[in-house]
Amino acid sequence: MSFLQGIAASSGIAIAKAYRLVEPDLSFEKTRITDEEQEIKRLKDAIAITKTELEAIREKANAELGADKAAIFEAHLLIANDPELITPIEDKIKTDKVNAEHALKEATDMFISMFEQMDNEYMKERAADIRDVRKRMLSHLLGVKIINPSMISEEAIIVAEDLTPSDTAQLNRKYVKAFTTNIGGRTSHSAIMARSMEIPAVVGTKTATKDIQNGDIIIVDGLKGEVHINPNQEIIEKYKQEQIRFEEQKAEWAKLLHEKTVSADGEHVELAANIGTPNDLEGVINNGGEGIGLYRTEFLYMGRNELPSEEEQFESYKAVLEGMQGKPVVVRTLDIGGDKELPYLDLPKEMNPFLGFRAIRLCLEEQGIFRTQLRALLRASSFGNLKIMFPMIANLDEFRAAKNILQEEKQKLISEGITVSDQIELGIMVEIPSTAVMADLFAKEVDFFSIGTNDLIQYTMAADRMNERVSYLYQPYSPAILRLVKMVIDAAHKEGKWAGMCGEMAGDETAIPLLLGLGLDEFSMSATSILKARSQILRLSKKEMEELAQKALQMSTTNEVIEAVKAAAEK
Amino acid sequence: MSFLQGIAASSGIAIAKAYRLVEPDLSFEKTRITDEEQEIKRLKDAIAITKTELEAIREKANAELGADKAAIFEAHLLIANDPELITPIEDKIKTDKVNAEHALKEATDMFISMFEQMDNEYMKERAADIRDVRKRMLSHLLGVKIINPSMISEEAIIVAEDLTPSDTAQLNRKYVKAFTTNIGGRTSHSAIMARSMEIPAVVGTKTATKDIQNGDIIIVDGLKGEVHINPNQEIIEKYKQEQIRFEEQKAEWAKLLHEKTVSADGEHVELAANIGTPNDLEGVINNGGEGIGLYRTEFLYMGRNELPSEEEQFESYKAVLEGMQGKPVVVRTLDIGGDKELPYLDLPKEMNPFLGFRAIRLCLEEQGIFRTQLRALLRASSFGNLKIMFPMIANLDEFRAAKNILQEEKQKLISEGITVSDQIELGIMVEIPSTAVMADLFAKEVDFFSIGTNDLIQYTMAADRMNERVSYLYQPYSPAILRLVKMVIDAAHKEGKWAGMCGEMAGDETAIPLLLGLGLDEFSMSATSILKARSQILRLSKKEMEELAQKALQMSTTNEVIEAVKAAAEK
Repeated sequence: MSFLQGIAASSGIAIAKAYRLVEPDLSFEKTRITDEEQEIKRLKDAIAITKTELEAIREKANAELGADKAAIFEAHLLIANDPELITPIEDKIKTDKVNAEHALKEATDMFISMFEQMDNEYMKERAADIRDVRKRMLSHLLGVKIINPSMISEEAIIVAEDLTPSDTAQLNRKYVKAFTTNIGGRTSHSAIMARSMEIPAVVGTKTATKDIQNGDIIIVDGLKGEVHINPNQEIIEKYKQEQIRFEEQKAEWAKLLHEKTVSADGEHVELAANIGTPNDLEGVINNGGEGIGLYRTEFLYMGRNELPSEEEQFESYKAVLEGMQGKPVVVRTLDIGGDKELPYLDLPKEMNPFLGFRAIRLCLEEQGIFRTQLRALLRASSFGNLKIMFPMIANLDEFRAAKNILQEEKQKLISEGITVSDQIELGIMVEIPSTAVMADLFAKEVDFFSIGTNDLIQYTMAADRMNERVSYLYQPYSPAILRLVKMVIDAAHKEGKWAGMCGEMAGDETAIPLLLGLGLDEFSMSATSILKARSQILRLSKKEMEELAQKALQMSTTNEVIEAVKAAAEK
Repeated sequence: MSFLQGIAASSGIAIAKAYRLVEPDLSFEKTRITDEEQEIKRLKDAIAITKTELEAIREKANAELGADKAAIFEAHLLIANDPELITPIEDKIKTDKVNAEHALKEATDMFISMFEQMDNEYMKERAADIRDVRKRMLSHLLGVKIINPSMISEEAIIVAEDLTPSDTAQLNRKYVKAFTTNIGGRTSHSAIMARSMEIPAVVGTKTATKDIQNGDIIIVDGLKGEVHINPNQEIIEKYKQEQIRFEEQKAEWAKLLHEKTVSADGEHVELAANIGTPNDLEGVINNGGEGIGLYRTEFLYMGRNELPSEEEQFESYKAVLEGMQGKPVVVRTLDIGGDKELPYLDLPKEMNPFLGFRAIRLCLEEQGIFRTQLRALLRASSFGNLKIMFPMIANLDEFRAAKNILQEEKQKLISEGITVSDQIELGIMVEIPSTAVMADLFAKEVDFFSIGTNDLIQYTMAADRMNERVSYLYQPYSPAILRLVKMVIDAAHKEGKWAGMCGEMAGDETAIPLLLGLGLDEFSMSATSILKARSQILRLSKKEMEELAQKALQMSTTNEVIEAVKAAAEK
């Protein structure tokens, strides 16, 4: 019975067995063998089991996760069946009289290093595939069990150092009850995934993988950020009660599903959702989203080997627009580059990727990619209430250039006889300090702003939010941030435009009173945060929050602001 | 006869022979040898010449550059004399019957990789030393001439891919007439060095090392950013005339040496200099600096293997304060970390060093380093007009914490009976957007601001100024930057404090009219820019510049601002 304190990353309580998603020990010694035939048989047996295993995983992935997720295992099967890879291993056993493990390693090393040395991200990924298959073969040679997250078939809590997008892609949502990880914060990938899957998560525990064994019973408390390992019956009972209370609370919130979001003194704001794919629509509707405030289109471009076609994009955009039945859908154009890489684009490595060549900077240079996306969006526009927004706009030159390209593509489509809505609003993300400072002039040319707080905070404070040594400076409630937010909202209102926010801050319990008071029109957040936020706003007086916000703007530190919000809530 | 266009990085005109500072070709084939004695003799001869050469370089460096610069060659001599390194090479020739080049490479590879694998920056540097010595031995084995910049003994223009601090440290300022490089911009190290050495420089030519051969006659025009390769007599004559005109211009400026800097309508501003070491004082005085606006203390900590002692720091600070004879000296506390590494501090590698653990962030955690520097500064304070400033302040918590530490050390010194000035002004660099936005509240607690535009611009625009793909966003004249500068200056004046600027922008011909108009009190720049800036300000009416600046603040793009400044200058 022990206990870990981490960061509460996704709310709720889960009690289940631990499933460790960690690398197994596949070390071995090189040995001389005498019976080559016997050794080659060991190799062939390991290959045969590998194939059976891969086929099983592929079937399961196909059935439960979809064909796109299963494709990777198809590729792995091709490798396991490739004589060009297998024959050199057998030759090595025969000629060098070494054990199969060593021969496997030596022979595949050659292929891996050949692929890795190619100056091409696609080929480098092939090296990773060979590594994966080799790991699987080696595990069967050594009789070590390796982890197959896609094969989980009972309720489990995932315990990992961190979760990558490819890890989470392989998880079966039916059985995964919670996450807990060693590293990460509220804005890390695993935290965002947990909120989107509506399961509790505690991240940043530092030692979860060290302290938790497979099969341990653990409790993940995503409300307080606590993890209990093999708790006694008393604690389990207590948490079962908490679980019930949380479910009751959720049921209470669920009554607000079809309510408008109106403050205690009768002011309406819009609560929208951030989504990544059309699959997320169900969650938006089940959680009472009044629109999509941020459709991140990057996922269309990721986990594949070539750019998505115009047609493919069109279908996705259309699906989301139709699914939202006339409610607003704000689509952000491609925000790739920097830390978000695409293997087939071959972008240069950068010293400071967060200050680098990404998003609109890349789109204005690689116009082919940008124009294809804009055409797909424009074609989809007649199927719903589309709003387009450009990410990482730093100055008016960039906005004007991007708008011109959009106009050109619109004219082309119209001259091709294709219907394009003439109601498309065109806005920008405000996530760079210069743009917040110039919001008054931007407001004359854009239709709306959406404040991207994750980036805005890190640039304004000059602190990488992923860097643990400076993440204490990632301060959403800093008066400096509130002042920039106010500049943006005031500038929009002065020109009769609207201002939204689509960073983590928009769904944050402490930030919501301040943002309401600053006059924010649209709050876009994880779908699972919407009902809770609605319940909070229903109880707040906008007029009182305006007074609170005005005071906060004159405070000198983040702590003063937090104290003031707490005091106001207790009143 | 050909021509390259680059970036004008340091003004003036130079005509001289090219000296290429580029890596020589030291490739060779492995061969079998039969006469081992003969091969060992070849090796011993190469080692002997290497030693003679290193001794000559050490003597010359000692005489012309100082003992600290010569120390590295002392270390290289120790390596060339080390039997533990040399014996294995001889053994390899004997046992493997391979050529000396191959034996040298194989034997030293082992040492290099051993040192490189150590998790210690100091040991990693030893690997670099062995590499250097090996390169020298190999060059003598192959009969290839390698470059010894410290041995330049006639007037030359350095042609290089880029210049590192260690390259420039080895250059004899007497003979080096100019630089031209393939990469870099106005704020790169080579550009800053050229301005400090008062020699012309053209950077970012892309192809200088490809197009220019050793001994080519070249002209570097640091005014227009042009490089002429083997020009005809007519062009040489033309440039000789230009050189004369530039010298006359400089002579004209020199008349302003003892003048105050007063605008045409009688308003005084202070022109100060940025320095790195006490050695730079001469340049400040020869160029009429009215003070030191930025003393970068990093150089005290760099190019060595341990922290500088309190005593050593005290002597440097005292030398600068005494040298300036009561004129203001603004010392910036240690701004290290991020991209500026110290081998003996063992800082973690970061994904985005510009948004990382550096400057005051590091000093507040590694308080021992910080307190030693503050004690040295406080002790030196009674020898002149000291002002202390903290770099990278992002919020008031940090400033208050740093100020408390300073007060503690001051009390300790006083209780030890040491005299500390009670006139020390305490200020901050404003180089993070949050601090500019909060300047009104900071102004109540600091004595002065110094705006660090190099960083402020890159954070405000979210663009790494060293990254060529986004450096177009490094826009000093952007209205967003001007608005932040105005916020800082207005906030200072409202509380009766002063505001200076110590980034590249403060000495920039296009920026000066705007900054004068915004009310900047102190302009701190490369010493060599001071007289030119003074001559410019003497001709400007502050009142007219105020009107120009007010208009610029309402402009929407950088180009509009540049055009307006040009138009005003032509009036």
